[in-house]
Amino acid sequence: MSQKKGLEGIVVADSRISSIIGSQLTYCGYEIDDLAENALFEEVVYLLWNDRLPNQQELKEFSDKLFELMNLDERIYDHFKNYPIESVHPMTALRTALSFTAHFDANAENTSDAAQKEKALRIQAQLPALVASFARVRNNQEVIKPKKGLSYAANFLYMLNGETPTDVQEEAMNKVLVLQADHELNASTFTARVCVATESDIYSGITAAIGALKGPLHGGANEQVMNMLKEVGSLDQVDAYIQKKIDNKEKIMGIGHRVYKEGDPRAKYLKHMSKKLTEENGEGELFEISKRIAEIVEKEKGLLPNVDFYSATVYHSLGISSDLFTPIFAMSRASGWTAHILEQYADNRLIRPRAEYVGATGRKYEAIENR
Amino acid sequence: MSQKKGLEGIVVADSRISSIIGSQLTYCGYEIDDLAENALFEEVVYLLWNDRLPNQQELKEFSDKLFELMNLDERIYDHFKNYPIESVHPMTALRTALSFTAHFDANAENTSDAAQKEKALRIQAQLPALVASFARVRNNQEVIKPKKGLSYAANFLYMLNGETPTDVQEEAMNKVLVLQADHELNASTFTARVCVATESDIYSGITAAIGALKGPLHGGANEQVMNMLKEVGSLDQVDAYIQKKIDNKEKIMGIGHRVYKEGDPRAKYLKHMSKKLTEENGEGELFEISKRIAEIVEKEKGLLPNVDFYSATVYHSLGISSDLFTPIFAMSRASGWTAHILEQYADNRLIRPRAEYVGATGRKYEAIENR
Repeated sequence: MSQKKGLEGIVVADSRISSIIGSQLTYCGYEIDDLAENALFEEVVYLLWNDRLPNQQELKEFSDKLFELMNLDERIYDHFKNYPIESVHPMTALRTALSFTAHFDANAENTSDAAQKEKALRIQAQLPALVASFARVRNNQEVIKPKKGLSYAANFLYMLNGETPTDVQEEAMNKVLVLQADHELNASTFTARVCVATESDIYSGITAAIGALKGPLHGGANEQVMNMLKEVGSLDQVDAYIQKKIDNKEKIMGIGHRVYKEGDPRAKYLKHMSKKLTEENGEGELFEISKRIAEIVEKEKGLLPNVDFYSATVYHSLGISSDLFTPIFAMSRASGWTAHILEQYADNRLIRPRAEYVGATGRKYEAIENR
Repeated sequence: MSQKKGLEGIVVADSRISSIIGSQLTYCGYEIDDLAENALFEEVVYLLWNDRLPNQQELKEFSDKLFELMNLDERIYDHFKNYPIESVHPMTALRTALSFTAHFDANAENTSDAAQKEKALRIQAQLPALVASFARVRNNQEVIKPKKGLSYAANFLYMLNGETPTDVQEEAMNKVLVLQADHELNASTFTARVCVATESDIYSGITAAIGALKGPLHGGANEQVMNMLKEVGSLDQVDAYIQKKIDNKEKIMGIGHRVYKEGDPRAKYLKHMSKKLTEENGEGELFEISKRIAEIVEKEKGLLPNVDFYSATVYHSLGISSDLFTPIFAMSRASGWTAHILEQYADNRLIRPRAEYVGATGRKYEAIENR
């Protein structure tokens, strides 16, 4: 019998990065509310990597470096044109493309502390360019290079849409990036730590994490929330639709969480932004549908919305197609992944559990003609 | 304090695939000795996936299908020509290339049982073609397509070297593939299971596992064994070289194992093959150097050689450059990875442990100009 299937409640590492106590999430000791209301995503990345917020000079240097590394090698842009891009899952494309960026990093195998931090920065910088250029090539649009002077959030929207975002759009994008930056040992972060605990490189860890985040039980959830909202169609259909799912014991995507039993602290910001952005876009009904789904599921099953639930309508309102939600989640979470990888390196031990063997025993090889 | 760092001794899953009890390793109830002496690698792959050995007809169909899927899409062969291939770590190249093969699989996102098995087969078939064509492009040689009628082991050597291997070479290659096919929840297999427990796809799991295997604490070890043998240079240098490493508390690669405290059951076959092949090649001193290293480390530290130790000289004798050892390990272990991924899917639960927060608390965001 497996004692610790899913490792629920098992503590596998000490960490200084994020903390979840009850429904309170902190990054390096700062409450998520405090950061969501005040911080630029770049500051949060700096915080996760350095255990403190940057001063003005440090933030300027950090942002300049991020911008500098945002341009991809031309062969990576070309790579997107070299396969049937419309039929490939965007997370598959991102998994390959991020792995491919290592081929152009002369420091890919350098394990000095400085090189590890440089690689983390490079990965963080290149992800928005990868996601945006994938999306544009897929739409037969010209790739757009990053624009000097824009924030990380704004530059992503700029490279994606070809227009400098409005202040409201930039703020919303920045907030979702901050809210999803880290979340302790979630499945993709744990995948990354298990991977690099063999002393493998940071690109391997991030590629592995992207693969894990792709799963519908993890990062894939917000895309499925959007699909569900589209399926529901209108407010008067919600009750019947959800009741049927509950009756069939189907999972309602974006609701409930392994760790937060009393509500996900990130959800309220996303709910607020979702309301604001959908109203501005004249799609208020989408928000109302979401709200009604949450009400029913809370009443019937006692489960509350998690970070994925309202982020779906936020992204939708920013003009982002639903299959790019998870790649954007990856862009944000990469900051946490890299922080955890650096933490794992700093005090490493191979992560190698055991299985309980429950199969056949005492078999003997028989010549094939006798089988 | 982290209670279960490294998860040593923690049972996280039931498994019917392989069992390690003391120094006995079995695959689906067959002792590794029995399989190493008798089985074709294809039979072992079939066994790991189906929990029984194939009959003649089943093996024929299985081998035919493997052969059929061995040809890569031309764009994957081309991909190797599109980056500075000499400066890229072969495991990085394999990580990207394997991930890329998913782009050409119309069933990449199909989660039916039949599609999952088909994907496992495709991955198993394409890995030798990926490794061999990477190696040939790197050497400015023409890529060689697989040859009908050869075994899996022989086809790999054929695609790599352009010559049908001798019987001894084929047997040695087959044996190392059999011996490395599975090993319970080693770090790369566990990485794959954590990754796909989010219900992510099999390509993500294998890509993640390749990333983990790349690490010097895991699959990278046999390459480092070869580097060590080259560094030692000659038999009369061994004692001083190893004593210095022991005095400096440096790890001796390929010796000792987290699980096998009384010796690795796979090592004896590799030792035997290493002796045979190095003698045939007139490189008997390499074997003698290995043997002497093992003697000293056993006497001084009580540690015994593991699977990596003698596989280094076996691969070297097959004319394989040392940085391809780990990619070949991946080719073999892919059979175990896919078996474990299919087992994880069959009774899945998200793998999500916890961290103990040991960082700062109660911090408040200060405006940047005040920092």
